[in-house]
Amino acid sequence: MAEAQSAARRAVAEREDVARHYRKVRQATEALCEPLATEDYGLQTMPDVSPVKWHIAHTSWFFETFILLPNLRTYPVFDPAFDHLFNSYYLTHGTPFLRAQRGFLSRPTVARVQDYRRAVDDAMLALIAHADSTTWRRVEPLLELGLNHEQQHQELILTDLKHAFAHNPLWPAYRSDLRSPPLRDAPPQGWCELADGLIECGHAGPGFAYDNEQPRHRVWLGACAIAQRPVTNAEYLEFIDDGGYREPRWWLSEGWSTLLDEGWRSPLYWQRRDDEWWQFTLGGMRPLDPAAPVCHVSHFEADAFAAWAGQRLPREAEWEACAQQVGADPRAAGTNLRDADHLQPVAAAAVGAPNQLFGDVWEWTASPYIAYPGFRRPDGPVGEYNGKFMSGQLVLRGGSCATPADHIRASYRNFFHPGDRWQFSGIRLAEDR
Amino acid sequence: MAEAQSAARRAVAEREDVARHYRKVRQATEALCEPLATEDYGLQTMPDVSPVKWHIAHTSWFFETFILLPNLRTYPVFDPAFDHLFNSYYLTHGTPFLRAQRGFLSRPTVARVQDYRRAVDDAMLALIAHADSTTWRRVEPLLELGLNHEQQHQELILTDLKHAFAHNPLWPAYRSDLRSPPLRDAPPQGWCELADGLIECGHAGPGFAYDNEQPRHRVWLGACAIAQRPVTNAEYLEFIDDGGYREPRWWLSEGWSTLLDEGWRSPLYWQRRDDEWWQFTLGGMRPLDPAAPVCHVSHFEADAFAAWAGQRLPREAEWEACAQQVGADPRAAGTNLRDADHLQPVAAAAVGAPNQLFGDVWEWTASPYIAYPGFRRPDGPVGEYNGKFMSGQLVLRGGSCATPADHIRASYRNFFHPGDRWQFSGIRLAEDR
Amino acid sequence: MAEAQSAARRAVAEREDVARHYRKVRQATEALCEPLATEDYGLQTMPDVSPVKWHIAHTSWFFETFILLPNLRTYPVFDPAFDHLFNSYYLTHGTPFLRAQRGFLSRPTVARVQDYRRAVDDAMLALIAHADSTTWRRVEPLLELGLNHEQQHQELILTDLKHAFAHNPLWPAYRSDLRSPPLRDAPPQGWCELADGLIECGHAGPGFAYDNEQPRHRVWLGACAIAQRPVTNAEYLEFIDDGGYREPRWWLSEGWSTLLDEGWRSPLYWQRRDDEWWQFTLGGMRPLDPAAPVCHVSHFEADAFAAWAGQRLPREAEWEACAQQVGADPRAAGTNLRDADHLQPVAAAAVGAPNQLFGDVWEWTASPYIAYPGFRRPDGPVGEYNGKFMSGQLVLRGGSCATPADHIRASYRNFFHPGDRWQFSGIRLAEDR
Amino acid sequence: MAEAQSAARRAVAEREDVARHYRKVRQATEALCEPLATEDYGLQTMPDVSPVKWHIAHTSWFFETFILLPNLRTYPVFDPAFDHLFNSYYLTHGTPFLRAQRGFLSRPTVARVQDYRRAVDDAMLALIAHADSTTWRRVEPLLELGLNHEQQHQELILTDLKHAFAHNPLWPAYRSDLRSPPLRDAPPQGWCELADGLIECGHAGPGFAYDNEQPRHRVWLGACAIAQRPVTNAEYLEFIDDGGYREPRWWLSEGWSTLLDEGWRSPLYWQRRDDEWWQFTLGGMRPLDPAAPVCHVSHFEADAFAAWAGQRLPREAEWEACAQQVGADPRAAGTNLRDADHLQPVAAAAVGAPNQLFGDVWEWTASPYIAYPGFRRPDGPVGEYNGKFMSGQLVLRGGSCATPADHIRASYRNFFHPGDRWQFSGIRLAEDR
Repeated sequence: MAEAQSAARRAVAEREDVARHYRKVRQATEALCEPLATEDYGLQTMPDVSPVKWHIAHTSWFFETFILLPNLRTYPVFDPAFDHLFNSYYLTHGTPFLRAQRGFLSRPTVARVQDYRRAVDDAMLALIAHADSTTWRRVEPLLELGLNHEQQHQELILTDLKHAFAHNPLWPAYRSDLRSPPLRDAPPQGWCELADGLIECGHAGPGFAYDNEQPRHRVWLGACAIAQRPVTNAEYLEFIDDGGYREPRWWLSEGWSTLLDEGWRSPLYWQRRDDEWWQFTLGGMRPLDPAAPVCHVSHFEADAFAAWAGQRLPREAEWEACAQQVGADPRAAGTNLRDADHLQPVAAAAVGAPNQLFGDVWEWTASPYIAYPGFRRPDGPVGEYNGKFMSGQLVLRGGSCATPADHIRASYRNFFHPGDRWQFSGIRLAEDR
Repeated sequence: MAEAQSAARRAVAEREDVARHYRKVRQATEALCEPLATEDYGLQTMPDVSPVKWHIAHTSWFFETFILLPNLRTYPVFDPAFDHLFNSYYLTHGTPFLRAQRGFLSRPTVARVQDYRRAVDDAMLALIAHADSTTWRRVEPLLELGLNHEQQHQELILTDLKHAFAHNPLWPAYRSDLRSPPLRDAPPQGWCELADGLIECGHAGPGFAYDNEQPRHRVWLGACAIAQRPVTNAEYLEFIDDGGYREPRWWLSEGWSTLLDEGWRSPLYWQRRDDEWWQFTLGGMRPLDPAAPVCHVSHFEADAFAAWAGQRLPREAEWEACAQQVGADPRAAGTNLRDADHLQPVAAAAVGAPNQLFGDVWEWTASPYIAYPGFRRPDGPVGEYNGKFMSGQLVLRGGSCATPADHIRASYRNFFHPGDRWQFSGIRLAEDR
Repeated sequence: MAEAQSAARRAVAEREDVARHYRKVRQATEALCEPLATEDYGLQTMPDVSPVKWHIAHTSWFFETFILLPNLRTYPVFDPAFDHLFNSYYLTHGTPFLRAQRGFLSRPTVARVQDYRRAVDDAMLALIAHADSTTWRRVEPLLELGLNHEQQHQELILTDLKHAFAHNPLWPAYRSDLRSPPLRDAPPQGWCELADGLIECGHAGPGFAYDNEQPRHRVWLGACAIAQRPVTNAEYLEFIDDGGYREPRWWLSEGWSTLLDEGWRSPLYWQRRDDEWWQFTLGGMRPLDPAAPVCHVSHFEADAFAAWAGQRLPREAEWEACAQQVGADPRAAGTNLRDADHLQPVAAAAVGAPNQLFGDVWEWTASPYIAYPGFRRPDGPVGEYNGKFMSGQLVLRGGSCATPADHIRASYRNFFHPGDRWQFSGIRLAEDR
Repeated sequence: MAEAQSAARRAVAEREDVARHYRKVRQATEALCEPLATEDYGLQTMPDVSPVKWHIAHTSWFFETFILLPNLRTYPVFDPAFDHLFNSYYLTHGTPFLRAQRGFLSRPTVARVQDYRRAVDDAMLALIAHADSTTWRRVEPLLELGLNHEQQHQELILTDLKHAFAHNPLWPAYRSDLRSPPLRDAPPQGWCELADGLIECGHAGPGFAYDNEQPRHRVWLGACAIAQRPVTNAEYLEFIDDGGYREPRWWLSEGWSTLLDEGWRSPLYWQRRDDEWWQFTLGGMRPLDPAAPVCHVSHFEADAFAAWAGQRLPREAEWEACAQQVGADPRAAGTNLRDADHLQPVAAAAVGAPNQLFGDVWEWTASPYIAYPGFRRPDGPVGEYNGKFMSGQLVLRGGSCATPADHIRASYRNFFHPGDRWQFSGIRLAEDR
């Protein structure tokens, strides 16, 4: 009986932990909104960019739709119209509102969406506290997914706002209080050597991971070397100054035609003023730091740079093997993830051990984003979360200066189209041995 | 000396009249904004639509740029960045910000644009009060142009908001206090007969008119008849029900291909729900009133309807001759211009004399918008106001339920592209005699 | 009885005249094809351009469809599939094959289309010879229309081939035997003065004219002057050298945006080589003749040039009044219509009387192409011939170096979109008096 | 000395073998052209499709540019203009003529391109016969590449003609003498089991292979099974009849949006007539054979079918391991490669051993087309041959009914975009064990 009581107490304590974590993640989203004017919440500067208001509503819709409605009988739908408006892409659930028109929704207002968040939070916290154990077994994995989903949208809020503000000739700073990061020299480049052999890749064991990181599986790797730090702005400028954007031979065929169509001559957000390069940041327009990792490059640019440098991009399994080998840890001191609050890449501090695998910039790999051997899409609408995007995109690894520190891990697979540049994406080189 | 004093007093009184008028027009713009949430100010649902915030800033920019800066030496530019942001299309003045991206400007905020308006108003009122007579002679015609320009944008604020709200599945009402207009039968159709002969067309004499209404000139007209009221929704429904949108023979070739490209099956803002037609209005979604003039049709639809009806659209000179002949007056009681505050077309009340020439709907004519004989573009940037648009558009006459009553006159020429439907545009028929 | 015989003889002679004319027009089409390689017959370089093979089949389809099938009971359809393939735009007759894909039809082969022409010709000549008088009354106007239609396509064969060959870097000459026209100075510009007054405009009386030239009707014209010859290449070069293509103030708004979209910097088919201007002609690449009329300009360019020159384009009624006043005659010696076999504009020979109203270049007017007062579309599919295109185009007058001399007249209204440049289109100036 | 003589004789014999092979491959191209009318040589129905005339010129340009000009001093360029016209995509060599406009080139005529081929052949045969041994060492690998390149274009001639003829409502048969293949039941589906383990993948050793098949390298494969024959039309019809084209859950996200954009409802070239399915073939329109492999499906359709079937597409290494394990041989009797002269997929004859790995249809794999570990692009323009296309495409294996039998091998990697359907592409299923 004492045992039963103590089990019950453990269960209660566990639920309280979950509730605390839930609140923390949700509040982090709201904290990101604090610097915004009401007018900023509605901006959509391209179909890939969603308004902040939509992000904060959609993440609530996720909890409401996939957790509250199936599991909390007393939950009254906050507004039946929201199911259409804030469904992102779950076609087996319903018909989402047109993505490219999310910016057309001045209503619901910001205030009403905040009410929506509060209503969902109240219900979620009630469910967390009081769900019976059968329900809880169903709810818990979805809750974990929902919070990770929310963190992904936290990063998107930052990247989407950066894109939106960059289209305003006033160059508004998202955070006027954001200080410029320390200027220092980049450490000299070095290599992390990987011997050939069978490695294991992907997630297994405890802890959360997305379906697309699973199952853990064997991969044969040839011997290779992975650069100890990302390519810097100074190194990338050499490529530009050597005519890199005018020379088709460095480029993939589709990269070259994209360059011509888009008129690319430098990474996104760079601007040349009187012979000086500047870059637009979440703190406003700033001089380019030559020692910081180059950022906002497409896969095409990363690949062309590597070709010009006589090297190549790492495969994702190589990247993961490297991270395993050096014991890379996203929580290590000095890691420039979002919690460091720079919100832009910063020059590496240390020399020696592989550095900046986590944080600063998402690192384009040479690997198309496809299913791991043995992957199966989950049943139900949540099966659309990752699997249906396994076409035409490439894997990026390691998180960026906009990624929450407790959201990233060595097996994490991010993915974007090869021409995408609005994420904090950069370059790490590799070569065969 | 008494004479001089009395002249001075007259001059002062005249300036006070102007100031009063200036304040009234500017306040009318602000009154239109009262029902808006901050989020509504930034909506842009197509390149032709501008955000309300942009309208209220641009009209101030017009006064600042063309009047204050050249004429009030003490005027400090409110914000040098605004010249780029709020220039609409004056290429001889500078490089306007991209029209299609006006919705990307969350900054300046609404509050700051309101400050801008106030600063411009203060300076304008000071200039009106204190300009010496030489300056005044330069300023006065531009001021009159600026106020008429502001009134045009007042109408656009309404049409653009209607377009924007119509893209939101919540169907927000711009004015939830707007009552549905009275239901009554449409009077039977009749004809206003015009004999053949030389008429005079265009503006001459005192009173403001745009350059494009001038010079007054002679036109030979053949005998014809002009319908006594616009085509009603019920009449237009007969066209739809007779397969009008499926039958190419009624349509101009470019009309038919536009219909196919856009998937037109009814006027804009119509919606069929369970065998009933509804229409979206500035007061929200409402049942279609069969007796009210059909609205939000393109020139292509107006022309096809006329062909189906065995008639034609009037030429603009015929319309103007008709208005002259019947002594049409926009200030006549019962005229449904904006001041009537219906903000949607309403069934005609009276029988007999030609009706609704002013108000309810802009009436598509058969006349392409081109220069009158003897027209010359004014010098300077203001020369871009009208003349450069004389290509590819058609003239509409008579004003609509969104047009200020003191803004419209018989010689007024509005113009839109033949596929445009977001203005309050309707159909009046004509036939040869 | 002798009278009846003589009437019969006259009828036979009349039919023989018609047959002779029919043969002559049809053979003229075939003569245009003589310089072609089989491969040239299939070229389609933009949707507006049709392959020569399509032109020669479509003109036969016109006779087959609108004359033979309804009037010659014994006529066996040559190939039932052709009705779909060679219908241009008669939606009330059937579903035309996609215009932009006419170049995809390698079959029927050229030889088979030539067989089709012969079969249609045989049947047509039989019908002309033997139709009873009731049938003949029905057939005759359609036959006249069909032959004029064929002549229009003869001109299109030349303009379309020029466009097609201009897209081949080999710059093939359509006619390698075509000699360069005589070089001579352009006569000085002069003016033809027109007093104000009521004029009559449009076709009436005997002789063929299209429906769109009718009815003849009165127009009031203000006093004006029409230039005595078209603008020359040398004059147009001054506009270019004065920065005309870089200065928005001369351009209509849609003209300027078209210029930017298309990258226009000179008329179509001009090419700069080592500081010399060349132009592509049907005789191959040739040095630009400064004295010849400028050609292959859009309405936008014509209008911009006129604005730069401080003048304007003539209205179509002014052009027609001028042609009437000076007694312009397309058959006058030295007129550069197709029969002169230059196939490019040539410098005017004479000074004094208005010149080159016919031939050399189609002259853009300021007049949008709309219905004349009293115009009614004919019944049946032929009603689609002209009327449905009365939207978005402008009238050109006078014929070009590619127009058959017996096809043009003072009332003739050609029409193209304001951005079109592949016709032999040029500029004649006008000004108010 | 006898030895030297015998070596010399061997060298001569070897050259004669090469010459014989050269002639054979070149003549095979010309044989493909025999059924064509002159008009057929110029068809280009989409940018991916090239006119036959362009194919036969380009393959000659390849020999002229990469072999004759650098190695045969006496070779006179046939026509200097051809270097621009017939360069496909070698940007490091020069500026290719616009791909989408290849159909605009009526000149050079077919006859002249045939002369070009003869001139190149004469020079090539002279070079083959007389090149000194140093030159020969340089020439030989390029010659082998050139002949393989020519064979690729032979297949494209067939696929491109099929696309072109399918756009003609006359449905012309490329080969009217082509008999329908034998009708027979498809063998029941079975599985080829592959155990897990390290395999070797890619080409090594003697015999030609493209750079992209190299280097041979190790891959770890999990246990899986590969279907014994491709999916049949009957099986694919079940997917269609089960609503496969209306159900987003089977589709990749980009597949679903492509389906909506393109209006896909069946494989390319299928047509429903009175409840019967027909398919367009190189022998004209024929009833669909239910037992034949489904063909002309995109990767998106192949992937959706596999998802619906509860299976997946094979990875390319699995396909290659399977081919190795069963000893698949493209020269085995009954293999339906081009030499079988069916030119359409045919139902499998045999039961049991894995079948149709070679021939019938190219089989979409799940593998994006990327570089093998250790791959390096060759130096010089030939380095553009394969490497620059390693982005956004997927690997297909096994050759089709249009592939020359001596052109295909187990390591051969073909690649197309996931939405491409105009190749003879089909589906083989796989599943994990």
